[in-house]
Amino acid sequence: MRATFMHNAGDVRIENTPDATLQKPTDAVIRVVRACICGSDLWPYNDMQAGSTPRPMGHEAIGRVEAIGPDVHRIKVGDLVIMPFAYSDGSCLFCDEGLPTSCQHGGFFGHDPAVGGAQAEALRIPLADGTLYPIDAPHDDAMMASLLTLSDVMGTGHHAALCAHVRPGKVAAVIGDGAVGLCGVIAAKRLGAERVIMLGRHPSRLALARDFGATDIVSERGEAAIEQVRALTGGHGVHSVLECVGAQSAMDTAIGIVRPGGAIGRVGVPHYENITGSPKSFFDNITISGGPAPVRSYIDDLLPDVLEGRIQPGRVFDHTVDLNGVPAGYRAMNERSSLKVMVRP
Amino acid sequence: MRATFMHNAGDVRIENTPDATLQKPTDAVIRVVRACICGSDLWPYNDMQAGSTPRPMGHEAIGRVEAIGPDVHRIKVGDLVIMPFAYSDGSCLFCDEGLPTSCQHGGFFGHDPAVGGAQAEALRIPLADGTLYPIDAPHDDAMMASLLTLSDVMGTGHHAALCAHVRPGKVAAVIGDGAVGLCGVIAAKRLGAERVIMLGRHPSRLALARDFGATDIVSERGEAAIEQVRALTGGHGVHSVLECVGAQSAMDTAIGIVRPGGAIGRVGVPHYENITGSPKSFFDNITISGGPAPVRSYIDDLLPDVLEGRIQPGRVFDHTVDLNGVPAGYRAMNERSSLKVMVRP
Repeated sequence: MRATFMHNAGDVRIENTPDATLQKPTDAVIRVVRACICGSDLWPYNDMQAGSTPRPMGHEAIGRVEAIGPDVHRIKVGDLVIMPFAYSDGSCLFCDEGLPTSCQHGGFFGHDPAVGGAQAEALRIPLADGTLYPIDAPHDDAMMASLLTLSDVMGTGHHAALCAHVRPGKVAAVIGDGAVGLCGVIAAKRLGAERVIMLGRHPSRLALARDFGATDIVSERGEAAIEQVRALTGGHGVHSVLECVGAQSAMDTAIGIVRPGGAIGRVGVPHYENITGSPKSFFDNITISGGPAPVRSYIDDLLPDVLEGRIQPGRVFDHTVDLNGVPAGYRAMNERSSLKVMVRP
Repeated sequence: MRATFMHNAGDVRIENTPDATLQKPTDAVIRVVRACICGSDLWPYNDMQAGSTPRPMGHEAIGRVEAIGPDVHRIKVGDLVIMPFAYSDGSCLFCDEGLPTSCQHGGFFGHDPAVGGAQAEALRIPLADGTLYPIDAPHDDAMMASLLTLSDVMGTGHHAALCAHVRPGKVAAVIGDGAVGLCGVIAAKRLGAERVIMLGRHPSRLALARDFGATDIVSERGEAAIEQVRALTGGHGVHSVLECVGAQSAMDTAIGIVRPGGAIGRVGVPHYENITGSPKSFFDNITISGGPAPVRSYIDDLLPDVLEGRIQPGRVFDHTVDLNGVPAGYRAMNERSSLKVMVRP
C-alpha cells in the first residue's frame, strides 16, 4: 500500500510500504476515506533532523473498517469510523477520567512506524474498541469534512475553550488563525462567549473567523496586540485565552492579555521551555491549563451539533488532494497559501 | 505609636511612628488585638537590599475599630474585625467576581508606608467597608488564634486546595510544612481528599500535619521525593498538589508528582521566573493555578467551621510575643525553631 513518510525537514514522500495488517487481537485495520494534514505536522516539516528514522505521517482520519481482531467487539467490519489522533483502550484509569490522551496503554498516531499514519491508503488501529468512534453513513462531502475535524481540530479547539473556562457572557480571545484557532472560535461561541476576539493576520482566515462568530479582530503582534486587546476590553484583558499556536511569543501574548482571575487554555504543541511564572501570572491569579485534547471523549458532545448543522468546522478545509498531492499540500500549508488540506486517498 | 519596620535583610526594628489616623472618608483605624509574622515576611528578611525604603511589616490582624471615616457605613467603632492581608473596596469588577486581591482600588498591607503594617499598635485601614470582616466578641485565646488565620494562612491554604481541584475521594499532596502548608492539609481534608500526603521534614510540624489530617509523610527532597510520592500512588502521582513554598525546587517537585489531568494550586509567593511548560506539564494536561488568596471572600465559608471547632488552624501558632519580641520572633521563624509567631501588641 502507499503511505506518507517524512524523512527530513521539507522532505515528505509517498512510498510503498507493507499493507496494514492485524497484529494484535484488539487491532482493527481501516481503509482511509478521509485524512488531512495538521498544523502540528508542520513542526517536523520545518525542524526534523536529517538522519532521523522516517516518520509515518497523519493522525486524523475517517475510515472504513476492513478487518478486526478476535478481541474487538464494539466495532464491526464495514463500520464508518472517526479515528482520533490518539489511540486508547477506553477502560484504564485515565480513560475512565475522560483523558484518553494519557491512556496507560495508548499512544499517538503518526509517530511510530509500528502503528503508521493516516495519510495513507490504510492503517492499523491498536485498541480499536476504545479508539474508534462509529458514525452512521452515508454523508455528503461537507458533512464528511466536519466529521473529520472531530478527529482533532474541532475537539482541540473545544479543549482550549474548556481549559480557558469560556463561560456565557464572558470575553474570550483566540490566538492563532490556523484550523485549531478557527475551531476555537466555534467552540468559544458555542459555549456562550459574548465576545470572541481573534488574533490573526490572514484575511481569508479572519473572514472565516467572523463567519464562525469572532466579534473582533486584532492583527497586531507582540506588545501592540496586547495593547489592542486591552483597549477592546476596558483595559482589563479577557476572561479566557485560547492559545492555539504553541510558540513562546503566543504564550507571552496570552499572559499579556488575560485578565485577573482569567484562564489560558493552551493546545498548541509547545515549542517553548517555560511559562512566565511571576509576577503577573501569579499575582493576577491566572490559570494555565491544556495539553493534547482528549478528542475521543468530546465526540459524544460535539457530534449532534455537527450532524444537525449548528456548527460547520469542516469549512476549515480549503484544499483537497489525493495521496500524490500530499507533498504539495504540506508546501501549501507551510506557505500559508492553504489553511488546511484534506487528503482523499 | 510603635510599629515594626524592616530596614534591611535581618534588620527588623520596633520604632516610634506617628499615630495611625483617618486620611480618607472610607478609612477606619483599628487597634491591633492580634497580629502575626508570616512566612512571606521571611523573604525580605533574607533578601531585602540595603538602602531600600524601610518597610512597615505585618499583614494579618484582628483588631478593634477605634475610628471610622464619614463614608464608612458597615463597620462601627468598637467592632472586633478580621483584617485580610489585602484591602479592597468590595464593589469593583474584580471584588464582584470574588477576587479582592485584584481590587481596582485595593492593595496589600505591610508594603506601603502610607498604609502601614499590622505588627504595630494600630493601623489605618483603607476602604474599611470592603476590607474588614466583623466578628462577634469575646472569644478565648485558642479561638482568637484560629480567627486570626482567616486573615491569611487558613484562607491561603484553602485557595491552594481549591486551585488544585481537591475533590472528595481523590489524593492530594501538600508541599511545604509551614503554616500555609499545614492549613493546606486542613483545607484538603475539609474538601474531602481521601489521602493527603505532606512533603516536609520538621518533626513537630509533621506531627501537627498528622493531627490536621495528613495520611502520609514524605521527607525526601527533589527526585527522591517525586519517586516516593509515585511509590505511594501506584506510580501515577496525585490528583492535586498544593504548592505552599514558592521556590523553584518546590514547583519542580509539584510538576514531578502531579498525575495526568491533575492540578497544581500555587500560593507560595514565587521566587522563580518560569514554570516548566513542556513536555510534561503540557502532554499530561496539567492545570497550574493560584496566586494571592482572596481570603476576604473565603471567610463566609470558613468561619462557621472555625467557630464550631471543626477546624483549628490556630494551632499553627507555637509562640507569642509582644511588640518588643517581634525581632526575636523573626529570628525564631527564620531558624525554623518557631512555626508561626503571634504578636499581641
